[in-house]
Amino acid sequence: MTPSPFLGELLGTLVLILLGNGVVANVVLKNTKGHNGGWIVITAGWAFAVTIGIFVAKAFGGYDAHLNPAVTIGFAVAQNEYGKVVDYVSAQMIGAFLGGTLVWLYHLPQYAKTEDKGAKLATFATDPAIRASGSNFFSEVIGTIVLLMGIKGIGAVTTGLGPFAVGILVWAIGLSLGGTTGYAINPARDLGPRIAHAILPIVGKGDSDWKYAWVPVAGPVTGAIIAGLLFL
Amino acid sequence: MTPSPFLGELLGTLVLILLGNGVVANVVLKNTKGHNGGWIVITAGWAFAVTIGIFVAKAFGGYDAHLNPAVTIGFAVAQNEYGKVVDYVSAQMIGAFLGGTLVWLYHLPQYAKTEDKGAKLATFATDPAIRASGSNFFSEVIGTIVLLMGIKGIGAVTTGLGPFAVGILVWAIGLSLGGTTGYAINPARDLGPRIAHAILPIVGKGDSDWKYAWVPVAGPVTGAIIAGLLFL
Amino acid sequence: MTPSPFLGELLGTLVLILLGNGVVANVVLKNTKGHNGGWIVITAGWAFAVTIGIFVAKAFGGYDAHLNPAVTIGFAVAQNEYGKVVDYVSAQMIGAFLGGTLVWLYHLPQYAKTEDKGAKLATFATDPAIRASGSNFFSEVIGTIVLLMGIKGIGAVTTGLGPFAVGILVWAIGLSLGGTTGYAINPARDLGPRIAHAILPIVGKGDSDWKYAWVPVAGPVTGAIIAGLLFL
Amino acid sequence: MTPSPFLGELLGTLVLILLGNGVVANVVLKNTKGHNGGWIVITAGWAFAVTIGIFVAKAFGGYDAHLNPAVTIGFAVAQNEYGKVVDYVSAQMIGAFLGGTLVWLYHLPQYAKTEDKGAKLATFATDPAIRASGSNFFSEVIGTIVLLMGIKGIGAVTTGLGPFAVGILVWAIGLSLGGTTGYAINPARDLGPRIAHAILPIVGKGDSDWKYAWVPVAGPVTGAIIAGLLFL
Repeated sequence: MTPSPFLGELLGTLVLILLGNGVVANVVLKNTKGHNGGWIVITAGWAFAVTIGIFVAKAFGGYDAHLNPAVTIGFAVAQNEYGKVVDYVSAQMIGAFLGGTLVWLYHLPQYAKTEDKGAKLATFATDPAIRASGSNFFSEVIGTIVLLMGIKGIGAVTTGLGPFAVGILVWAIGLSLGGTTGYAINPARDLGPRIAHAILPIVGKGDSDWKYAWVPVAGPVTGAIIAGLLFL
Repeated sequence: MTPSPFLGELLGTLVLILLGNGVVANVVLKNTKGHNGGWIVITAGWAFAVTIGIFVAKAFGGYDAHLNPAVTIGFAVAQNEYGKVVDYVSAQMIGAFLGGTLVWLYHLPQYAKTEDKGAKLATFATDPAIRASGSNFFSEVIGTIVLLMGIKGIGAVTTGLGPFAVGILVWAIGLSLGGTTGYAINPARDLGPRIAHAILPIVGKGDSDWKYAWVPVAGPVTGAIIAGLLFL
Repeated sequence: MTPSPFLGELLGTLVLILLGNGVVANVVLKNTKGHNGGWIVITAGWAFAVTIGIFVAKAFGGYDAHLNPAVTIGFAVAQNEYGKVVDYVSAQMIGAFLGGTLVWLYHLPQYAKTEDKGAKLATFATDPAIRASGSNFFSEVIGTIVLLMGIKGIGAVTTGLGPFAVGILVWAIGLSLGGTTGYAINPARDLGPRIAHAILPIVGKGDSDWKYAWVPVAGPVTGAIIAGLLFL
Repeated sequence: MTPSPFLGELLGTLVLILLGNGVVANVVLKNTKGHNGGWIVITAGWAFAVTIGIFVAKAFGGYDAHLNPAVTIGFAVAQNEYGKVVDYVSAQMIGAFLGGTLVWLYHLPQYAKTEDKGAKLATFATDPAIRASGSNFFSEVIGTIVLLMGIKGIGAVTTGLGPFAVGILVWAIGLSLGGTTGYAINPARDLGPRIAHAILPIVGKGDSDWKYAWVPVAGPVTGAIIAGLLFL
């Protein structure tokens, strides 16, 4: 494959979601080896999903390795330079959709064994521990601001062990700020797989909870704009 | 924002407490995704809170990234140079107060669902597993000495993966020495959010346990002075 | 001992399996200190087994430190250069067989206390959470492709903290993709110890589940060939 | 304090044991915040205890940072150079004794609340999951050989993140090989605190299990000699 930023963002985000939503599937679906593995498993899984996603993005031309429209938008706002936004966000959305689809194909026998419609949806998209739009939105805004301030602090996110440091950043956000909304902090991470959930012929699935879907998109984008204006 | 050591210490400590007290909130409040996540979640959360706090401090001018009056005092004593103390400690206290406040705003629906007054206070300030002033004080002294000896050993705490090494240091202290008093080892970490607890209109809160509040201040300061005189 | 790539691959794989299958023994056998330690223990154990295996391989001449026929085959396909394959794969198989044997010798009293035949076999070879050949095969293919894409992204796997980064990669795969088949992603890891299980006089052992044995060999090899052609 | 290899080994080992035995105290004694934290807490605690012990040793002149007679002996055998052995081992034993004593002073209220004599002893010295001298001895020999092969592979254990890599090595050994004897793999780690247990006026203590004490000394020394002759 010919490396390009588009391909890198796409494959990196695909791997991010395959591993990130994969750890949720491993913990919440029935008949898996990681069933009920707990919050440390979920958050470690997402952390390393980010680390490996960045390594993969780099390997295929994604030298920025954003993997997240909120990161792309935040830095675009900060630098007042929007040339990459459409290209990157498209790649991220496609990658997230494909990654979510692959999680489902990967765990097909487990989806068949699991009755809980909410558990199935949780392997695609986030949902809040307590449904309260304003507070949930605030969670996603703050989580995304911390993400972007952390990335600014880390600096060289794609060199040396930078991808590991970004993983630690996302581990921190998950452990500490993930308890309310499940820390989407990335519109593609939530919307891409939610579209997959809506489209795919998943056995015994429920609705795709579209009434909540605006929160994990608008919250991270709002956080990214605030961070871009104030902190980056 | 114009970077400065004051701003760096303030924002770094704010993020430290937002993430550190945040993981406590995620584990002890009701209706969170990390509820009852266990000691590994608590200690990993605080470890990475330190790592990310240092990265953020650096990004905003906090080139020392102490985030902790005990660190500032310990090195001031060792170098017999007290010029930064008031500036740094003020920033750390303001950051800790704001961080503690933000944890509350972030988890508002969870505070409403949680009846346990002790759990609510635990998301702001430390309390001992067994109340025994002398022993609790001793715990905080020893924990802080280990912190400062470790920082001396690590050396370049703000370069490369130095922030990660300091996180590991705090993870070690939490895992091994945190069982008695909950390892404040930082006066700002305890006092700033305790003041927030006293002031904020938290639903169904109890008292702020001021009778214990001297321990997590005097213990770390004493440890810092001992370390500054003997070990740094 | 005279360092050589053969010796390095052999000793590195031996240590990989001693530690990797060792953590399974610690968690699933009776009368161990890590009994029922959970998925975080299993996956951390395998992650660091890889890291230490690479360090050991390097120390004894294994400058590639593949420790895995799928890695050797994937890069051979990508580079269309098959000169090392027989040498490396032989060393990996011997190392895996010896490592599996050592796990048994190490836990002899525990094998005597454990009645569960499936638990005993699990300390040698993988088995799927849900037996479904096609899906299990698919799991091993995808897991191996992610492994090889990650290795490509990491690049310098044997220098500096490269061995740690590869450990994180395997931790990620375990946490997120290990729930279905137990992530062999390495033919030697499964086949070598399975042969040991068949041959060794293990007290109260059951059969060696040869009907499943093709999956953790053919899956990783297929994934390696796909990755070698498309992604490396 | 004037840095010297003696002081570095002493303080580094003191911190190693304070943190290492400290995590055991946190998990097994009553009325601690980490009570029943599980194997991941124990092994992470010991891993980071090693990392921080090495950082501290370095800071006080311990440029080798062995912290373990088995490491000192293994490299002495390998290099046929025994000049440092008495000096280092003395410092390690004194440090381990003092570290074990400090764990007790640190958790005095917890020792008073805990009736279980075995739990109290476990905070000082190791004991096997199944008592079987030959097998226990074999465990300690193999664990120590893996430790020394890993150290050889890591190479620069005291530079950069080398101390972290050694921590990962000990984490690996704990997770994977610690289930049988509790991985002393260090004569000072076991004997120093066991002497402290015998001497100190610990409330409600039982005997110091001297009949087992030879295993965690002779096993690691034997492993060190084998590794020194064959692998270093």
